[in-house]
Amino acid sequence: MKVDGDAYRTIWPAVDGRAVEIIDQTRLPHSFETVRLETLEDAAHAIRAMLVRGAPLIGATAAYGLWLALRADASDAMLARACETLVATRPTAINLKWAVEDVRATVAPLPEGERAAAAFRRAGEICDEDVEINEAIGRHGLDLIREAHRAKDGRGPVNILTHCNAGWLATVDWGTALAPIYKAHDEGIPVFVWVDETRPRNQGAGLTAWELGRHGVPHKVVVDNAGGLLMRRGEVDLCITGTDRTTAAGDVCNKIGTYLKALAAHDNGVPFYVALPGPTIDWSIEDGEQIPIEERDGREVSHIPGRTDDGHDTAVRVTPESSAVANFGFDVTPARLVTALVTERGVCTASKDSLRALYPEHATAAAE
Amino acid sequence: MKVDGDAYRTIWPAVDGRAVEIIDQTRLPHSFETVRLETLEDAAHAIRAMLVRGAPLIGATAAYGLWLALRADASDAMLARACETLVATRPTAINLKWAVEDVRATVAPLPEGERAAAAFRRAGEICDEDVEINEAIGRHGLDLIREAHRAKDGRGPVNILTHCNAGWLATVDWGTALAPIYKAHDEGIPVFVWVDETRPRNQGAGLTAWELGRHGVPHKVVVDNAGGLLMRRGEVDLCITGTDRTTAAGDVCNKIGTYLKALAAHDNGVPFYVALPGPTIDWSIEDGEQIPIEERDGREVSHIPGRTDDGHDTAVRVTPESSAVANFGFDVTPARLVTALVTERGVCTASKDSLRALYPEHATAAAE
Repeated sequence: MKVDGDAYRTIWPAVDGRAVEIIDQTRLPHSFETVRLETLEDAAHAIRAMLVRGAPLIGATAAYGLWLALRADASDAMLARACETLVATRPTAINLKWAVEDVRATVAPLPEGERAAAAFRRAGEICDEDVEINEAIGRHGLDLIREAHRAKDGRGPVNILTHCNAGWLATVDWGTALAPIYKAHDEGIPVFVWVDETRPRNQGAGLTAWELGRHGVPHKVVVDNAGGLLMRRGEVDLCITGTDRTTAAGDVCNKIGTYLKALAAHDNGVPFYVALPGPTIDWSIEDGEQIPIEERDGREVSHIPGRTDDGHDTAVRVTPESSAVANFGFDVTPARLVTALVTERGVCTASKDSLRALYPEHATAAAE
Repeated sequence: MKVDGDAYRTIWPAVDGRAVEIIDQTRLPHSFETVRLETLEDAAHAIRAMLVRGAPLIGATAAYGLWLALRADASDAMLARACETLVATRPTAINLKWAVEDVRATVAPLPEGERAAAAFRRAGEICDEDVEINEAIGRHGLDLIREAHRAKDGRGPVNILTHCNAGWLATVDWGTALAPIYKAHDEGIPVFVWVDETRPRNQGAGLTAWELGRHGVPHKVVVDNAGGLLMRRGEVDLCITGTDRTTAAGDVCNKIGTYLKALAAHDNGVPFYVALPGPTIDWSIEDGEQIPIEERDGREVSHIPGRTDDGHDTAVRVTPESSAVANFGFDVTPARLVTALVTERGVCTASKDSLRALYPEHATAAAE
């Protein structure tokens, strides 16, 4: 999407052909800095230190990381070492493992002299495939926003609430939840976005607000506590979020706090949409309660990073030193609270039958 | 309550009889500092700069402020000026106006030589009355916790979730929502408290966690997004919050985010209790949606104050400079989501009939 008028992806080959470039997302929203990745170690560090985040972008970075490794040394030994290094950077990221295995399978049968170029090509394809999927999600979600706009009959913009960052920064381009919003904005449909701050990591305040602002989409940041009031007051026409994992029955595991917003949407008759690429559906389980919830470092709760008025980047403690904290990463929104799922293949209700109809190739597997 | 073993109120006459002392709540949770108020201006500043906050404590501070004023000059002119000064410190605080008028009515008929002493006595009584009310709320709420403890039959402590700070720091002692928790803890009933951070002002992380910790009550701080997950997992036995204003029909206006927790409690069969002193019931309205919601300074959302690792107190910006924010102070939880109200007169359902039965003196007024 655009950053103050210039089109960007989150990862792209450098014009000199000797590196891949990324946006250092740890510096957002206060500084916009791009970083050149020239070696395997650069790529591994970018993933490990979360300069890049979001499953699709992590996968794309790892794919390019293999190119960088093989460019220096295309031996079987290096290929094995590079795959191992990259997969170890974020052990729970499924996309990462998938992208690494994909590139490895592409290059392993080739002579050493052709491996680097093949890895580069495949990394580019992986990026393009992600963009295509997200754009398709955007097109299908756009229909929902267009409908909401028609229903409002000119009474102001379509007011949309989103949680966390499921925007282009989490993918290669477009994003998932934000793709329909960008599509609508680019088409001239007036949209306004309520951006949940999204404690503890503030991805809403820091990333979603930044990317919407840079692309020119009107928005306001609110604390995570505010969505209920906004919905009761009729100031939200629809909610749309991403999801980390969706069950075969349509339960949605997403950033902690999503469930609370879905409850408020349900209580107030506001549609609650979840945008996702088909590959994130976990066909092996139906009940979202079976998904293990990651517990993360308590410092994310006790300390908040940001920039002081005199321009220093630091973190401040908000809890007493002696108070313990708990930090859960995700919660599960049951399918009954989800109005519809927005996928690259179209919009469907959050149910086993609808999902199987959209992804028939999984119908048998899921039935077994 | 206790601060590391020593009993405190939030306001008390200095032992030398020449001042009133308070805890500087702007310094919590990182520093525990008491401040002497020796003049009318000291008292006005303490209220205006929020060294003291919470309706009952503001009222008590204003009452002592009149004593401080009259001690220096007990003339009618000073009495008028002092009342005006104090009421202007927080124009929307109803308790403040009430306490000032109460002390004024007590001292105005008296000869100048007796006014200061009478104001001092009346301020002390106002404090004691607040403590009595809160202790009574605590006793009635204790029954609910005791019941929950019995129902758990020894399976761990009673897990209680609370939002914002309705503790002793917001009153003269005991608090409202936290009073039953202190009573239970002091009686040896094992309790554990999930403390909502309570963005944007972080009164949970900063004040509730501090006061529970200093009194020795086990607790953990969680972000406001976490409560839904905790309830789905069965890790919350009951919720209890305070309220700024309750309608005659039991709708509850409280800190933004309360409604979201009440929805989650309802969805998971967790009792949701609201503790309140009778005087905060607004008998003039039934529908909570009629309560105007205060919009506050956006800096509370965009900037978060705290202490850096090297011991500096500062604030950090978490939103992009160019992103607008919205900051709503309260939301309304409809009576249908409130399991019961806990008042100084006992526990009742959140309904017009139950409230009238408990406060029959208002039954006629409300019917008119």
